[in-house]
Amino acid sequence: MMMEASFDTEESFDDPSCLAPQPPGSVSPAKRQITEVKETKITINCVTFPLPGEGPEQQLLKPNEWSYCDYFWADRKDPQGAAHVTGFEVLLQKQLKGKQLQKEMAEFIHERIKIEEEYAKNLSKLSLSPLAAQEEGTLGEAWTQLKKSLHDEAEVHLKFSNKLHTEVEKPLLTFRGDNFKKDLKKYDHHIADLRKQLASRFAGVEKARKALADRQKDLEVKTQQLEVKLSNKTEEDIKKARRKSTQAGDDLMRCLDLYNQTQSKWFEEMVTTSMELEKLEVERVEWVQQHLRQYTTLRHETDMFNQSTVEPVDQLLQSMDPAKDRELWVKENKTGEVRPVDLDI
Amino acid sequence: MMMEASFDTEESFDDPSCLAPQPPGSVSPAKRQITEVKETKITINCVTFPLPGEGPEQQLLKPNEWSYCDYFWADRKDPQGAAHVTGFEVLLQKQLKGKQLQKEMAEFIHERIKIEEEYAKNLSKLSLSPLAAQEEGTLGEAWTQLKKSLHDEAEVHLKFSNKLHTEVEKPLLTFRGDNFKKDLKKYDHHIADLRKQLASRFAGVEKARKALADRQKDLEVKTQQLEVKLSNKTEEDIKKARRKSTQAGDDLMRCLDLYNQTQSKWFEEMVTTSMELEKLEVERVEWVQQHLRQYTTLRHETDMFNQSTVEPVDQLLQSMDPAKDRELWVKENKTGEVRPVDLDI
Repeated sequence: MMMEASFDTEESFDDPSCLAPQPPGSVSPAKRQITEVKETKITINCVTFPLPGEGPEQQLLKPNEWSYCDYFWADRKDPQGAAHVTGFEVLLQKQLKGKQLQKEMAEFIHERIKIEEEYAKNLSKLSLSPLAAQEEGTLGEAWTQLKKSLHDEAEVHLKFSNKLHTEVEKPLLTFRGDNFKKDLKKYDHHIADLRKQLASRFAGVEKARKALADRQKDLEVKTQQLEVKLSNKTEEDIKKARRKSTQAGDDLMRCLDLYNQTQSKWFEEMVTTSMELEKLEVERVEWVQQHLRQYTTLRHETDMFNQSTVEPVDQLLQSMDPAKDRELWVKENKTGEVRPVDLDI
Repeated sequence: MMMEASFDTEESFDDPSCLAPQPPGSVSPAKRQITEVKETKITINCVTFPLPGEGPEQQLLKPNEWSYCDYFWADRKDPQGAAHVTGFEVLLQKQLKGKQLQKEMAEFIHERIKIEEEYAKNLSKLSLSPLAAQEEGTLGEAWTQLKKSLHDEAEVHLKFSNKLHTEVEKPLLTFRGDNFKKDLKKYDHHIADLRKQLASRFAGVEKARKALADRQKDLEVKTQQLEVKLSNKTEEDIKKARRKSTQAGDDLMRCLDLYNQTQSKWFEEMVTTSMELEKLEVERVEWVQQHLRQYTTLRHETDMFNQSTVEPVDQLLQSMDPAKDRELWVKENKTGEVRPVDLDI
């Protein structure tokens, strides 16, 4: 990927929702722990940015997408204010937090499962209760069905809890297993290594810049000595000093080149990896969405199946008949239908 | 009410469903613990019935209604075979059993209430759990609503349990309070007193019948003595004996009349009271039916209200958007959108 030098001040600083703790340009020069290089650029934590209003305007790599690859170039001081957190680490923490939240959701669902199992156990137990088991006739049938309906309800809730386990809890828990954290660690080390390399390259540049300045100073001194004729062999010395100065200039150019190559490599890896993390986050949100939808589907099913457990009770209550019950009971319990008559001699 | 002497053999003995343990006419004469009075009637436990095939045919008082007043005239040996249980006591036991079953149903509903309360408590507690509370954006909103829906579910189940208490358990428990058993005792004593009175009247009849037999024997002896002239003053004696015999006959008639009056009184009270008990049983069955219907209505309501607790979750899951969530998160967490540029001299 090509590095661009454009810089869009409007978009980054006119937006009131721009809450990034320390956008590079907003730091007052007095507080900068930085090395200034000319007036158009600023190097912060060994990364070089254009100064506001300097250089060609930068367009977002993915305009209107709020892509990770566009918003995490600077580092940020951690809450303690001492160490700094790279933009990439902010992205990694988002991933770790997502993984954690997903685990917590699975835990929540697990608690729900336990509640359903307990409820089902209690309903099932009550449905076996002998209470009013001696009720007879159509009333007895309705009552028996009502008790049985508790067993059916228990089954519905047990089915709900089983499906919650296999279709919601497990997928939430197992989505991105242990490999995920290893993968994140790999990304982390890779980008951190590039930043270390960049720091070492930047130190090289600084050293070469210092050496060049020394050589230039030396050449300057020697040129002045020639002018006031304070020394012999000055012509030779100046030639030598000029050669060394040119060599130091070449050296600086090579160091700058190495630095810029490394920064470019880091830039490319940042773009590639942050887009990968962005994709992972979209997948996570969609995965969670899919399984929370499964949760509500199961809840709806549970309510529907629950409705149907009551219907047979309703039917038997509908066909209850006190006269029929009396007939059944009288047939079973009657003592005699011959009525008494007058006694006579 | 008039006493009838009709006797319907077809209806009582040809009916295969006639399971009354000892219909009066089916007992073999050898086993009867009874006093036989002529050949057309039989007195069992001091109540007088026509013998099968004797007397005018009896029609049921309330044909096709299986009314209590038609089927509990005889007594029945209790399971131990010793004491006998009156038909009326069989009816009273049915009432007491009904009261007990109603109490057991209330107890069953009470257990259901406790299960609902426990379930609601657990759901409510879980809805307050901080699990995954840090989830952000549209996913965070959906998750928060999902957790809140557990609180709503808990409320639905709590409402169910409250309504079960006031609209099902309490009515079942309080229908026919302590007065009911007192009323039954009053009926019991009233009918039992009449049976005791009947027994005493029957003993009177037996005694008068014996006295008449003695007088008739005495008259017979004296008449024979007159024929063989074994004694003097026989004419006077015979007159006296005949007068006493006539007096004994009048006495028996008076005792029979008293017995029949008492039996008639008992009959009327049996009809009136058994019809009252029959009405009470119809009321009980209808009361229970009404409140079990209330139970199923509340169950249906609960399922319906439960459905509606999930709907806001469904809506928020529907409007979930990973891109929107990324935008929100990036705005809050971005570190800087100015991209690095090449460092130069």
